[in-house]
Amino acid sequence: MSGWSTISGWILRSSAYPPEMYLSALASIGIVEPFVKYPQKILVSIHMESFEPIKLNLLKPVPSDIDISQAVTPKNILKVAREVGIQDDEISPYGTTKAKVHLSILDRLNDQPDGKYIVVTGINPTPLGEGKSTTTVGLAQSLGAHLRKKTFACLRQPSQGPTFGIKGGAAGGGYSQVIPMEEFNLHLTGDIHAITAANNLLAAQIEARMFHEATQKDEALFNRLCPAEKDGSRTFAPIMFRRLKKLGIKKTDPNTLTAEEKGKFARLDLDPSTITWNRVVDTCDRFLRKITVGQGTEEKGHTRETNYDITVASEVMAILALTNGLEDMRERLGRMVVGSSRAGEPVTADDLGVGGALTVLMKDAIMPNLMQTLEGTPVFVHAGPFANIAHGNNSIIADRIALKLAGKEGYVVTEAGFGADIGAEKFFNIKCRYSGLTPNCAVIVATVRALKMHGGGPNVVAGAPLHPAYKEEELNLLGAGLSNLLHHIGNLKRTGVPVVVAINQFSTDSPAELELVKVKTVEGGADAAVVSNHWAEGGAGAVELAQAVVDACEKPTDFKFLYTLDLSIKEKIEKIAKEIYGADGVTYEAEAEKKIELYTRQGFAGLPICMAKTHLSLSSDATKKGVPKGFTIPIRDVRASVGAGFLYPLVGTMSTMPGLPTRPCFYDIDIDLKTGKIMGLF
Amino acid sequence: MSGWSTISGWILRSSAYPPEMYLSALASIGIVEPFVKYPQKILVSIHMESFEPIKLNLLKPVPSDIDISQAVTPKNILKVAREVGIQDDEISPYGTTKAKVHLSILDRLNDQPDGKYIVVTGINPTPLGEGKSTTTVGLAQSLGAHLRKKTFACLRQPSQGPTFGIKGGAAGGGYSQVIPMEEFNLHLTGDIHAITAANNLLAAQIEARMFHEATQKDEALFNRLCPAEKDGSRTFAPIMFRRLKKLGIKKTDPNTLTAEEKGKFARLDLDPSTITWNRVVDTCDRFLRKITVGQGTEEKGHTRETNYDITVASEVMAILALTNGLEDMRERLGRMVVGSSRAGEPVTADDLGVGGALTVLMKDAIMPNLMQTLEGTPVFVHAGPFANIAHGNNSIIADRIALKLAGKEGYVVTEAGFGADIGAEKFFNIKCRYSGLTPNCAVIVATVRALKMHGGGPNVVAGAPLHPAYKEEELNLLGAGLSNLLHHIGNLKRTGVPVVVAINQFSTDSPAELELVKVKTVEGGADAAVVSNHWAEGGAGAVELAQAVVDACEKPTDFKFLYTLDLSIKEKIEKIAKEIYGADGVTYEAEAEKKIELYTRQGFAGLPICMAKTHLSLSSDATKKGVPKGFTIPIRDVRASVGAGFLYPLVGTMSTMPGLPTRPCFYDIDIDLKTGKIMGLF
Repeated sequence: MSGWSTISGWILRSSAYPPEMYLSALASIGIVEPFVKYPQKILVSIHMESFEPIKLNLLKPVPSDIDISQAVTPKNILKVAREVGIQDDEISPYGTTKAKVHLSILDRLNDQPDGKYIVVTGINPTPLGEGKSTTTVGLAQSLGAHLRKKTFACLRQPSQGPTFGIKGGAAGGGYSQVIPMEEFNLHLTGDIHAITAANNLLAAQIEARMFHEATQKDEALFNRLCPAEKDGSRTFAPIMFRRLKKLGIKKTDPNTLTAEEKGKFARLDLDPSTITWNRVVDTCDRFLRKITVGQGTEEKGHTRETNYDITVASEVMAILALTNGLEDMRERLGRMVVGSSRAGEPVTADDLGVGGALTVLMKDAIMPNLMQTLEGTPVFVHAGPFANIAHGNNSIIADRIALKLAGKEGYVVTEAGFGADIGAEKFFNIKCRYSGLTPNCAVIVATVRALKMHGGGPNVVAGAPLHPAYKEEELNLLGAGLSNLLHHIGNLKRTGVPVVVAINQFSTDSPAELELVKVKTVEGGADAAVVSNHWAEGGAGAVELAQAVVDACEKPTDFKFLYTLDLSIKEKIEKIAKEIYGADGVTYEAEAEKKIELYTRQGFAGLPICMAKTHLSLSSDATKKGVPKGFTIPIRDVRASVGAGFLYPLVGTMSTMPGLPTRPCFYDIDIDLKTGKIMGLF
Repeated sequence: MSGWSTISGWILRSSAYPPEMYLSALASIGIVEPFVKYPQKILVSIHMESFEPIKLNLLKPVPSDIDISQAVTPKNILKVAREVGIQDDEISPYGTTKAKVHLSILDRLNDQPDGKYIVVTGINPTPLGEGKSTTTVGLAQSLGAHLRKKTFACLRQPSQGPTFGIKGGAAGGGYSQVIPMEEFNLHLTGDIHAITAANNLLAAQIEARMFHEATQKDEALFNRLCPAEKDGSRTFAPIMFRRLKKLGIKKTDPNTLTAEEKGKFARLDLDPSTITWNRVVDTCDRFLRKITVGQGTEEKGHTRETNYDITVASEVMAILALTNGLEDMRERLGRMVVGSSRAGEPVTADDLGVGGALTVLMKDAIMPNLMQTLEGTPVFVHAGPFANIAHGNNSIIADRIALKLAGKEGYVVTEAGFGADIGAEKFFNIKCRYSGLTPNCAVIVATVRALKMHGGGPNVVAGAPLHPAYKEEELNLLGAGLSNLLHHIGNLKRTGVPVVVAINQFSTDSPAELELVKVKTVEGGADAAVVSNHWAEGGAGAVELAQAVVDACEKPTDFKFLYTLDLSIKEKIEKIAKEIYGADGVTYEAEAEKKIELYTRQGFAGLPICMAKTHLSLSSDATKKGVPKGFTIPIRDVRASVGAGFLYPLVGTMSTMPGLPTRPCFYDIDIDLKTGKIMGLF
């Protein structure tokens, strides 16, 4: 597997061109060490190997994430692609360290068996996070670079907003990172920017259309939408047939529509109070949380109160994550519901004429982004929907391509956001339902720190010093807190997949503490429990975990959904609340009842449920740790992402727009003008 | 020049890999037609030529722009780069048709002489535009593919907003286009998205900082900005020394600052009524023209009225266009002024701690984008600032790199926005002043249609049918309208450069009409006047124009600025108004007087002037055609783009946010799901 295969040959060179020109051209395609001793010819050798790892030079103490990232020279992304069997015409490089992979690869590899599919999830974390991304990357490094299995890590792309607000990257950490982490955390290949553009084009059209409808009569509106040619003839744009079909109008010549039909067609009659579509920006701008638009004199007093969300909260992002291909994305974008007409009918992006344009804006974003880990194993970074108001998982397309490329002997490690009660539940019941894929193994990440918190340890607050209980051996706290982990293990096992516990090791964890977690979780039903030190040691620190995952993936699975789609909205919500969270029941506020009635009437009751709940507790109260008992889940409101394909009940208030602190971390971010390197990013 | 040079050699191949794998790898690096007859080896040949044109298949009638664009297979952008002497390590491809060129190339080519520098400008146009971009591209195609001179076209990147609003691309048109026009008109490589991100990060920080200052006392603010370590020590972030220097504080240990110094340092004390920094979005969203932000309860009543502009109106865009390199961009971004403190001092992006982060966001955007014309000649697309509130020219960096690559025998054709009274005036007095470059020739584009309008022809309105006067021979109208063109020729000649008139031919122009323009403009001082038919015929239709430009570039130049920077703000404005527009004088409203006083006091009087005036007339009244007389220029207000480096007096109201019509052109835009091609874009 790790053997070299070399082909070589002479290339004649012309004296008209300097040798540097050849060297540069050859280097760019991964032909290294050309032999240029002779004036007329160059000996080139191409090493072909299925995978060539990058050797890590582990330092102690572990340097900052950006220092580790910048100390490693990434392989040319074309080489990474070739190593995993991506053909050169199936890839669009964006510079030398990232590339988009074309969806045509799914056709070519259609008959290829899938690799093993591993989802990484976690317990309910402290506000500091318990290292799911780091574990995902470390596990992939270990499987790929140490066990030499063809392994992909599939990660979410982070929002750029928090990158400049509060320290904390999303590329993993320590010696388990995606590189270059600057590219990962900044624009990447522009997918989030494309989402912003698509989301806001739809928002602008909602506003503009309401304005034009308010200032024009039916006939004038219709005539503008279907303008007459010189000979008086009119045509419908292809997209207009979607609305005509919805209205039950089968005519194809605009001039034959009755006045009533013209009115129905041209006047969407959006009820402003029902509009759920917000504008988005990928910046932490809290002053946009609630705004009034349309105050210019040219907008003639048509002001409206509305909101901005951060871009990753856009339904377009959820669609990117859940779509299975271009055609499916076109349909989903077109059927996004932005609000209801005054008659109570859902109004969609296609009603507004914009579904095609949104698809055009998203045509590159749909291709997953190939990057690599610190040890040179392949990574797909694609889509990053919120884990509360959306499902918090990376894209189906990336996972599918990775599974095909990995093949029968390979592995795909994908991460689900938040704790297992949210991210993994949605992974199984939303993502896997839409993808048709079934996981072979779930890895649940836990830290001694978080378990102690669940056992009654002092509050953990981001930015504040950690209480000594978290740095000293505290077997009682730890033992009590194991209940949270055991609850999640039970949930995961009932889904029918093997479960491996990954204890993400901190230097302050005592051997007795680590042993306690291992013993108790295996007793509690986990297929394995392993201590992993990938943060400090990279893939080498996760070899035992990787081996446990390989073993678990050999076990049979009996994967089943928690609920069937034909259950009512309330039945589905209650199943999740009782069986996953351990709640006694669910209560609904008036707004929630109203929406459940509305969505049922509009025909959306068959969608899966995407609970918008805190990730800090199994209950809806973030302060309740461990395994809370005797609680109900209060549903404040229910919203619909019809294009993405789920309803999301709001349990409490979800912030969809972070703010900037007094000293945002951008104070430290700058460019080294000599080297061009980014400084101060994490 | 057009001869081939070929190098070839055998590559031994291993039977372990299928031949397709080799073919794909070889094709990706431009090695075509490998000879694979033998099982053990492949004969590869590399053709090296300075330039290989794409042959056009000209159709009549001329198809739509997108059909022409999609009918041509672009060369791999790596090949385009190699043809012009860009080394592989100096380029980052974004897919196969666009690439970013690294600024390091300027170091390598430092000693290379520049090519000839040609600016394309126009008369005051009709609202339909007179084809400056098309002429720029057509001229470059002709110089490059027909006269076989190494020629770059340098164009602005268009806003994505209008692409979805009102039909009309910016990639040229007909058989003179940049391809693929979809890529050109959509995200390109994300530069505009980066500008949006940078602009809005600064906006969010303005808002957040004002909020934090309003809710915290000096000491608390200071302690948050310079938090104490465990041992009580504090440090300044490097960027903070910029503010300390401005305040005259030389201390380096935060703990040694007096209470007064801490207050001065930490409290920017922005006067909300002076804030000139708007948020931006690259979408036509008229409802954002005037908004109120901060209406969320968490913002505690700190609401504020503000505005959104379209992204290309951002000062960050103007900086991208005017910067000379990374270090210069860092300084310009940091010194952008967002408003004044209550004490009347300018508050900058660096005062807000964000200049470094903005640079990081713009680090890729600073690299110009390489594309190609329909005939395979190289194009740089880089920056697209507004031509009224900014200077309306593409980037200095793109022009500089193009001039070095073109070399002594080559040509660089760059376009200035709007008419010659605005775009060319700003090209000379702002862009050339900052770049240090001097043009060798100005091409002024005119159409018979627009000249007739200047001669008193009926109104020309976008979207409405054209009056017959514009389709029939009307020598009187034309003769009268020539005054506008002659006025611009005079202005250009006084700048000290040769002037070539390019008559952009329409099929309805009569021979007598074309001849009249030629004769009168040469009599009026033009160095040459040529009819050009590049829209219908590509470069072949512009050969005579290209030859005239080559001849003009051999003439000596005596380039001089219209004004020196040491003149007062008013003196500079008046010089432009009188000498370029032909005004009798300038009047100032109270707001303008106030700002002139403010900016003079703040030390910004030495900046060049960027007039924000209509492009439809030499005067400030868009309805006054030809050469208006007896008018004054009324200055309503004066604004400052201190980072970009100019003051912009507002002559009337400038719209910086377009709207969407009732039937936006996105109704026609969709993706062909079978081919993946974009439909309906222009």
